[in-house]
Amino acid sequence: MPPVDSDGLLAPGWVGSPASAATSDGAFLQALLDAEAALTRAQAELGPVPAEAAAAVAAVSAADLDAGAIALLARDGGNPVIPLVARLTAAVGEEYGPYVHRGATSQDIMDTAMMLVARRTLDKIVEDLEHTARELARLAADHRDTVMPGRTLTQHAVPTTFGLKAAGWRSLVLDARDRLTAVRLPAQLGGAAGTLAAFTAFGTEHTQALVAAYARELGLAEPALPWHTLRTPIADLAGALAFTAGALGKMAADVLTLSRTEIAEVAEGAGGGSSAMPHKANPVAATMIAASARRAPGLAATLYGSMAAEDERPAGAWHAEWEPLRDLLRLVGSAAGSAFELAAGLRVNAHSMREHLGLTHGLIVSERLAVELAPVLGRARAKELLSRAARRAVTEGRPLVNVLDEEPDLKDLDLADLTDPTRYTGSAGALTDRALERR
Amino acid sequence: MPPVDSDGLLAPGWVGSPASAATSDGAFLQALLDAEAALTRAQAELGPVPAEAAAAVAAVSAADLDAGAIALLARDGGNPVIPLVARLTAAVGEEYGPYVHRGATSQDIMDTAMMLVARRTLDKIVEDLEHTARELARLAADHRDTVMPGRTLTQHAVPTTFGLKAAGWRSLVLDARDRLTAVRLPAQLGGAAGTLAAFTAFGTEHTQALVAAYARELGLAEPALPWHTLRTPIADLAGALAFTAGALGKMAADVLTLSRTEIAEVAEGAGGGSSAMPHKANPVAATMIAASARRAPGLAATLYGSMAAEDERPAGAWHAEWEPLRDLLRLVGSAAGSAFELAAGLRVNAHSMREHLGLTHGLIVSERLAVELAPVLGRARAKELLSRAARRAVTEGRPLVNVLDEEPDLKDLDLADLTDPTRYTGSAGALTDRALERR
Amino acid sequence: MPPVDSDGLLAPGWVGSPASAATSDGAFLQALLDAEAALTRAQAELGPVPAEAAAAVAAVSAADLDAGAIALLARDGGNPVIPLVARLTAAVGEEYGPYVHRGATSQDIMDTAMMLVARRTLDKIVEDLEHTARELARLAADHRDTVMPGRTLTQHAVPTTFGLKAAGWRSLVLDARDRLTAVRLPAQLGGAAGTLAAFTAFGTEHTQALVAAYARELGLAEPALPWHTLRTPIADLAGALAFTAGALGKMAADVLTLSRTEIAEVAEGAGGGSSAMPHKANPVAATMIAASARRAPGLAATLYGSMAAEDERPAGAWHAEWEPLRDLLRLVGSAAGSAFELAAGLRVNAHSMREHLGLTHGLIVSERLAVELAPVLGRARAKELLSRAARRAVTEGRPLVNVLDEEPDLKDLDLADLTDPTRYTGSAGALTDRALERR
Amino acid sequence: MPPVDSDGLLAPGWVGSPASAATSDGAFLQALLDAEAALTRAQAELGPVPAEAAAAVAAVSAADLDAGAIALLARDGGNPVIPLVARLTAAVGEEYGPYVHRGATSQDIMDTAMMLVARRTLDKIVEDLEHTARELARLAADHRDTVMPGRTLTQHAVPTTFGLKAAGWRSLVLDARDRLTAVRLPAQLGGAAGTLAAFTAFGTEHTQALVAAYARELGLAEPALPWHTLRTPIADLAGALAFTAGALGKMAADVLTLSRTEIAEVAEGAGGGSSAMPHKANPVAATMIAASARRAPGLAATLYGSMAAEDERPAGAWHAEWEPLRDLLRLVGSAAGSAFELAAGLRVNAHSMREHLGLTHGLIVSERLAVELAPVLGRARAKELLSRAARRAVTEGRPLVNVLDEEPDLKDLDLADLTDPTRYTGSAGALTDRALERR
Repeated sequence: MPPVDSDGLLAPGWVGSPASAATSDGAFLQALLDAEAALTRAQAELGPVPAEAAAAVAAVSAADLDAGAIALLARDGGNPVIPLVARLTAAVGEEYGPYVHRGATSQDIMDTAMMLVARRTLDKIVEDLEHTARELARLAADHRDTVMPGRTLTQHAVPTTFGLKAAGWRSLVLDARDRLTAVRLPAQLGGAAGTLAAFTAFGTEHTQALVAAYARELGLAEPALPWHTLRTPIADLAGALAFTAGALGKMAADVLTLSRTEIAEVAEGAGGGSSAMPHKANPVAATMIAASARRAPGLAATLYGSMAAEDERPAGAWHAEWEPLRDLLRLVGSAAGSAFELAAGLRVNAHSMREHLGLTHGLIVSERLAVELAPVLGRARAKELLSRAARRAVTEGRPLVNVLDEEPDLKDLDLADLTDPTRYTGSAGALTDRALERR
Repeated sequence: MPPVDSDGLLAPGWVGSPASAATSDGAFLQALLDAEAALTRAQAELGPVPAEAAAAVAAVSAADLDAGAIALLARDGGNPVIPLVARLTAAVGEEYGPYVHRGATSQDIMDTAMMLVARRTLDKIVEDLEHTARELARLAADHRDTVMPGRTLTQHAVPTTFGLKAAGWRSLVLDARDRLTAVRLPAQLGGAAGTLAAFTAFGTEHTQALVAAYARELGLAEPALPWHTLRTPIADLAGALAFTAGALGKMAADVLTLSRTEIAEVAEGAGGGSSAMPHKANPVAATMIAASARRAPGLAATLYGSMAAEDERPAGAWHAEWEPLRDLLRLVGSAAGSAFELAAGLRVNAHSMREHLGLTHGLIVSERLAVELAPVLGRARAKELLSRAARRAVTEGRPLVNVLDEEPDLKDLDLADLTDPTRYTGSAGALTDRALERR
Repeated sequence: MPPVDSDGLLAPGWVGSPASAATSDGAFLQALLDAEAALTRAQAELGPVPAEAAAAVAAVSAADLDAGAIALLARDGGNPVIPLVARLTAAVGEEYGPYVHRGATSQDIMDTAMMLVARRTLDKIVEDLEHTARELARLAADHRDTVMPGRTLTQHAVPTTFGLKAAGWRSLVLDARDRLTAVRLPAQLGGAAGTLAAFTAFGTEHTQALVAAYARELGLAEPALPWHTLRTPIADLAGALAFTAGALGKMAADVLTLSRTEIAEVAEGAGGGSSAMPHKANPVAATMIAASARRAPGLAATLYGSMAAEDERPAGAWHAEWEPLRDLLRLVGSAAGSAFELAAGLRVNAHSMREHLGLTHGLIVSERLAVELAPVLGRARAKELLSRAARRAVTEGRPLVNVLDEEPDLKDLDLADLTDPTRYTGSAGALTDRALERR
Repeated sequence: MPPVDSDGLLAPGWVGSPASAATSDGAFLQALLDAEAALTRAQAELGPVPAEAAAAVAAVSAADLDAGAIALLARDGGNPVIPLVARLTAAVGEEYGPYVHRGATSQDIMDTAMMLVARRTLDKIVEDLEHTARELARLAADHRDTVMPGRTLTQHAVPTTFGLKAAGWRSLVLDARDRLTAVRLPAQLGGAAGTLAAFTAFGTEHTQALVAAYARELGLAEPALPWHTLRTPIADLAGALAFTAGALGKMAADVLTLSRTEIAEVAEGAGGGSSAMPHKANPVAATMIAASARRAPGLAATLYGSMAAEDERPAGAWHAEWEPLRDLLRLVGSAAGSAFELAAGLRVNAHSMREHLGLTHGLIVSERLAVELAPVLGRARAKELLSRAARRAVTEGRPLVNVLDEEPDLKDLDLADLTDPTRYTGSAGALTDRALERR
């Protein structure tokens, strides 16, 4: 069992997940150190900083430092990089201390660490989305022709298939994957006000080469401009993560509906139980995903709001980004893992689906009948006859087909076929096939 | 230095604060135990549960349990109460185990713990708001007649006083206090679906008496109905906390503006420094408060959104409340502490305020002149003369009073008085006095 | 059919409603004029402004002015009061023109108009909430003993009653009413920077008397301080309206769930139909209320965010309030009307409720059995026996009571009673009675 | 002056703008008709629908119908397509009536119209962003070497250039353009539950060909699947629009700061005036843009929240999209127009910028001095000497260069150069050049 180094007690949705580990204080501290090490290495590569200094900085790891103490010291200046640099400088010793954080500003390190943590978390999320899509492809293929009621505004409308539904979930999951992989995560390096001036003072002639080397060391994109107050990467992340939360939220919403005791068309592989109520198999994974989908929009809103950041570093807009972005990464990362579990274990009850098609006494195909009877009876009579038959079917509790059988004008029609819900799925199969071609 | 038991590295705004301690996992775990203990005690008081069982439950404290392990086990069922009850049952031993959590549902304990944590945090917040209000009263009284530019849409408008500004901040702080103290925090007790049925099965005849005893034990309000999906207390908390964040955010926004290098009319007592830039005294407290004010609305939105909770316990809406509510309590709690520090230490530079009144060459009183000259010159001529004079004052860089002195038609007027910004503060003093009467 | 003077095509939720009329451009224009008229009247009452001037201002009505033209002219200065004052001044003629808007700033008039519109809309909302509560009281009383499945996380838990559910909805509706009626709506009067200075320049000695007279004329509360950037009234409105949207959203969420084709325990009196699908009776009112509940939190978030307003009038925060507040008033106002219709027409299908109690083969009372069997068999054996019986009931598709009947150890128990869901509603009836006592 | 057909009185930010016209009720009504016409045309192209029917449908324009009446009738079914189809059917006459809306569901038409309106509005927005970028390129080039204070957390940090600032604004504007142009806007066609079944019933064999023809007729993208509850296009729009609002919001935030009376480094070409206060030149365009940036995140949050849409058509989530999406299109569209005006007319006061570089008595280059003096004096002594000199400069109110001139150890340094803020802009020029290469 992995240790819980953070506020996990209120967070069954993400505690213990890989995304939680990738976004922990320890992971952030390491990312901050990674940024410092990359900076010194890049300077060693390009200029007068001795390689030994870079090695000394790189040798300090998060385990050597006290994240809690640094956090508390961060109160004074409003960010953790200030005390971190002090401790890192002390850790590398007097000789190499002057090379620590040379020319950089706190935001360079903080933003870069955020991108590193995002990079590492997104990799996991994308992997889980791929896994989820694979399981959903399997479900869609297996249930390509499993007919079920299509529902609109809570009411049965016309039939659909579970295959098409699963294919739709998958298309959203792939859309989410595409949006996440499209987000560009650049390193941050600009110095005190984004002009890279201190680096020039320290003798770096080609600052852009330094920026490029720094980004390369970190495996991050090279920024065109310091983006201290040009928050494109943060906003893009916010949007892609909110999108993913919503995409998974759609699947969860459907699973929750279809899991209802009265519907029971699907069930989570391993629902959460209750000792006093042995019949309860709570759809816990879907519930956790749904909860994340409810929270992501508000977090993304805060991050979009922080784009309007005044000056070369804003007083508040930047600081308001840190926790919401971590929360989003965690929530969405864990939701992706839950979605994989959910898709992998989902039990589909084709029998219930089939049975529910009859709940409206056959009226679920009334749209088809309206279309098919019009050329036979004329539009007006067809409509009148259908309305009457529908009323009778409902009030007498008889299948519509039986009521219609009594209509002499319809005796030449193959009513059994016309009223068979499984024969009115339109292009559901073809759409499913087509959707599954996407990779 | 207090220990950091949570994700504090990204949170200089709240790490190490009393609100952080009051909302930690440890504090929540204790609150969950407090709820269980109160339930058993209430049952012992009213019925066949032995007092020893109640004592046994009450004897278990958060320190006896492993919050991290419970958090991880919470994943299965989607809430931490299930594993907590298992551990608590084990801890009290076979004899008293049957009395643990008797008749209750997880949500009874979870919601009650949330209210307890809220109660404890709100007490601190209200105290800090009172302290802040006291400091602001001092500032308002001290600077009742300190004249400064009133600014609208970033431009000087007419004069105001710093006293009135501080009195306004204080009125918002008192409004926040009043809203927080008005929030009713009830205990939660309803059993599996809010009917209290299990308690009746266990033999409690007067369930409302049990509910009352339980609430009394906890120092919480007695609920009229189980509120598993009647989320008035959560929504009220969300609103009052978002209000408080915004109220403090107003003060922070003003301090940030007035602290600007070019304005420098106020300065935080201890600004955050920068070793490479000794002139920088960053308004760190105001920045942290401003960041909280940016985050609170999105969190409150999620909580308001959770009111639309289906059934007797919703699948997601409830779970989406826990972290946002804790975040709000923490952020607002810490902001209130920072506001107290800010108000207590704020340095006011009346000299700069006075100087800035002259920045528009006297046009800051043009409104007054328009009023006063109209009866002397007629409205049309007064307006024409003033426009001309204003243009000259600006283009020639001369005080308006000197330009007006050259107008023969105005020679009978006391232009020195009429153009003195400190003589055009209207009812600022009276409004300040009046506002300070509020307690 | 009332005229639609605004963007109603995308708004079936509010178009044509009284709240729509109360918040139209025409209604706002009238409110702006009402504010101007009240100001002149208050000045006539207290001082040198002639009563004829006040009468002349009061004689101009919204119908005399072109709201569209004023709207377009508002672009230049960023608010509609500037062009309104120009037209109003022209309308009253040369003699009384100088008394129009005397001493006021645009925000005085704009904020006051917003409060007037809020006052008028809230009155309607509160009325509709009262009506809704009355209908819900009727439903709760009528169905005090109508037993139905209690549902948690989408699954049947234990029985509850529809009476308790309706009583719960009602308690939220009354909570909403109480929060809306508690909002204090003050007039706004402060002049250019909130010091009331221009009024003093015009000769008003007791500015607070003027403010009081102005508020009294308008039927609004007297403000303690000008609140140009002390946005308590706006934030309080935002919170109370978001609360109301959520409160009604709870009822809508339940109605939507219970209206599902598979559940059909309730139905809207007049569902929206579909010609091609005669079986569809869409829960349109609940859908509209649910849509409002989804939108209100984001709107309220913007309004809470505007509390952090810099200076004596902010550049953006104020302007960002106008449309969201109108939207909230409209959405919530119309939702309240829909809620009344919904509650008045709701059809309750007690038969379906009763039938669904059997869907889990009797396991819906397993909690009770666990409690009752423990003293008879011992806790461990009771649990073991129950689990086994539950499994058999589900797999064999037999009622739990029949399975239990075969257990010799239970032959002394009144199993028919113990397994009757209608006998396990705990305090539902008493809670309903108690809740209905509230007025 | 264009007519105002909507609630413009509270919206000086968008009233009368091209985006307002493109999103009016009239424009939406036309888009709904365009969708219906395209559907009939596509069916005529592929199958048994007569071309004359398509012509008859296409001949009906928004001007022929009463948007207000349709809006009111939309209340019954919860969307305007139902009454629209009734009126359209009547308008084309008995012969062609049967071909109207054939096989489609309301959501097909509504979603398609939304995409058409989005397409038309986005085209305008992108054009305005291009114009804005061009003006910002001009500003950046003209002021490539205009040095000004770089500001962080409201305090002067080190120098920067206005060129770099304008280049940064431009890079955000181009990012916004790229995000908006990347949004894929598909037509919607799925029939009652997204299976295209009614089209097959009407005899369309290759439904995908029909979908393709329909999309082609409309100039919209062809959807891979009906997206009734796969809301990728809506979420992508929400994200791109919120991004654009934030991008423009950054520029507005800077302009508002730099326009302050005390700073006055920039001024809007035509600020909004005040007759009583002739010195006021309010930054109205920036204020309107800032207000939009405050509102967009909350609206986008609602739209992201609607992704979690249950079933084949959700009861509320869909309906909650319409107005927020229109609001976003309008607000962002108008903000883009305002941004163009703002950029085109912005007056830059290089003299004020230069003067402000001296406000910290030269300490704005202390970072550079710390770097440069260390090798001369040793790190520790350099630091100590600098701190002392800084203190003296501030307390004695003398330029730092004069204080340093008195230090004998520094006599070999070119202090005039080292302390010249215009010589410490690092790579600002090179970054600007590089940024301007982007097209």
